[in-house]
Amino acid sequence: MKTAREIAEVRRIVSEARAAGRTVGFVPTMGGLHEGHLSLIDAARAECSFTVASIFLNPTQFAPSEDLSTYPRSIEADLDACRTRGVDLVFIPEVETMHRGDALTTVTVSRLTETLCGRSRPTHFAGVCTVVTKLLNIVAPDKAFFGQKDYQQLAIIAQMVCDLDIPVEVKSCPIVREPDGLAMSTRNQRLSPEARLQATVLHRALTLAREQIRQSRPPASEVIASARAVIQNEAPAGELDYLQIVDPKTLRDVETTDDGVLIAVAVKFPGARLIDNMLVDSTAPRQ
Amino acid sequence: MKTAREIAEVRRIVSEARAAGRTVGFVPTMGGLHEGHLSLIDAARAECSFTVASIFLNPTQFAPSEDLSTYPRSIEADLDACRTRGVDLVFIPEVETMHRGDALTTVTVSRLTETLCGRSRPTHFAGVCTVVTKLLNIVAPDKAFFGQKDYQQLAIIAQMVCDLDIPVEVKSCPIVREPDGLAMSTRNQRLSPEARLQATVLHRALTLAREQIRQSRPPASEVIASARAVIQNEAPAGELDYLQIVDPKTLRDVETTDDGVLIAVAVKFPGARLIDNMLVDSTAPRQ
Repeated sequence: MKTAREIAEVRRIVSEARAAGRTVGFVPTMGGLHEGHLSLIDAARAECSFTVASIFLNPTQFAPSEDLSTYPRSIEADLDACRTRGVDLVFIPEVETMHRGDALTTVTVSRLTETLCGRSRPTHFAGVCTVVTKLLNIVAPDKAFFGQKDYQQLAIIAQMVCDLDIPVEVKSCPIVREPDGLAMSTRNQRLSPEARLQATVLHRALTLAREQIRQSRPPASEVIASARAVIQNEAPAGELDYLQIVDPKTLRDVETTDDGVLIAVAVKFPGARLIDNMLVDSTAPRQ
Repeated sequence: MKTAREIAEVRRIVSEARAAGRTVGFVPTMGGLHEGHLSLIDAARAECSFTVASIFLNPTQFAPSEDLSTYPRSIEADLDACRTRGVDLVFIPEVETMHRGDALTTVTVSRLTETLCGRSRPTHFAGVCTVVTKLLNIVAPDKAFFGQKDYQQLAIIAQMVCDLDIPVEVKSCPIVREPDGLAMSTRNQRLSPEARLQATVLHRALTLAREQIRQSRPPASEVIASARAVIQNEAPAGELDYLQIVDPKTLRDVETTDDGVLIAVAVKFPGARLIDNMLVDSTAPRQ
C-alpha cells in the first residue's frame, strides 16, 4: 500500500495505475475508520481494480462551534485497516495542501442543503461539496463510494456530480450497524456509556416509524409524533435536533406516506450529535 | 473537423484523441467568433496536438436585463472559421444539455468577483464559473485558452482552477485589437456607426493613462480623473460604467501607481457595453 501527502504524487500514482489498465475506485473519509468505512473500501475493491482512500479531517465543513477539535483521530490504526483491507493508495494531505490560504472558491448546492442537517449546520455542505470536488479532481476516480448513513450528503454529492458533469460514478452503499442497531459512526466513541445505551433509540424510533408506515400509511405528522415520543422517553440524555419524513429525491417534507419516503433523524448527545435514517419503499407490501 | 452536440460524444472523441497520444487544447467561446477568438485557437494549436472549441451562448451568465436576446449569433460562419483555423472538434451543445432543469449547483469565487464588472453584473461570474467548470469536466483538456480582454474573467477562472484543483493549465492570451485600437469583441457589431467611432475612446483613455503612469507614477486618483475626462469628452454616446486602477493579482483598487497595475474600463454604449484593460508593468522604465 502506498501513501501520499502531495497532490502531484497522488496524480502520478493514479495515472500509472490507469496506464496499466486499472480502474480506479475512491473512498473519501475523515479518518476514525470503522466497519462502515471499510465496507466502502470492500465495495470499491469489488468494482474497481485500484482502490484509493483519502483520510482528511476537513476543517471547512465544521462550524466554529462544532466538534472539529474533539473529532476522533486514529491515523495509524486507519492506515493499518486500509492495508489489511487491500487499499492500494491512501491520500493523507495536510490541511494546508487542501486549503491554501488564498482560496476563494466555493461549490454550493441549493435546496437539498437547506433541510435536515443543513438547518442546524448551514455552512456544512458547502465545505463538503468544495472539498469533495477537490478530491475528485485530484484522484480522478472512475467510481466514488459514499455511505447511506450520511444520506443527505450522498444526495447532495450525487446532485453536484451530475450538475457539474464531474466524470465519476457515485456509488451509494448501505449503512453498517452495531449488533444493537446503532449506525456506525466515528463519533460513537465520544458517547458516555450511558449515552451509548440511549443512542440505540435512533434506530428503534426509525424502525418503529417504518413499521407504522408499512402497516397503515398514516399521515407523516402522526408517524413523526410517535417517533419523537419514543426518542424523548427513551433518551433523556439526548436532545432531538430533527426528525423528518421527506421525499428521498428532493428531501422535501412530505405530508402523506403513500409513496417511498426517507425517515431521517438527528439527536444531540453530550459529546456527539448522531444521525441516522431509513428508506421506506413505496413498493414494499403492506404487512 | 468534427462537431458534437452531446456530452458523451465529446468525451468519446477526446478520449480517442488522448489514447492516440495527442494533447488537448480547449477554447471555450460564446460564438460570434472574431480574430480574438481565432488567436486563442492558434495558441491552442501551437501548444497542443488536438484542439477543441466550444460554442455555447451561456444564458446563466446574463442577468434578465442584459443582452442575451440580442447577442450576435453566427453559428455557420463560426464553424467555417473553426474549420479554416484547424480546430479538430467543436462542441455545440443545446442549452438543455448544459443546463438541465433540475440543476442546483453553483461555483462561486469571492472577492475577485466583487469589483470591476462584478459591481454592475453581480450574478455574471457565478454563471461563468459554473459553466466553465462543466466545460472543463466535459472536455478534460490539458490546457484551456482565455483572452486578456476579459481580464477579470481570466483571473477568476485561474483562481477557481487552482482552488478546485481542476487538472488543467489556464493560458492567458493577449488582446487582439482593430487597426484603430478598439479591442475586438462580438458586441462591437451591435454599435451604431457613430458609437463605433466613439468606442475607440476606451483604448485611447487606457493608453493615455498608461503613458501618464509610465512618465510620473502619479496617484491613481489623478490618472483616473484624466482618463474619465477623456471618455466623457470624446464619447458623448457612452456612459462610463467604471474606470479603475487595480492590483493585477487581487483586483483591489490601488492608491499609488508605483507597482504594476491594471487599468480597466467599461463603457455602456447604446446596444453594447464595452470593456477593455491595460497592464502597466512596474519594471517598465520611466520614459
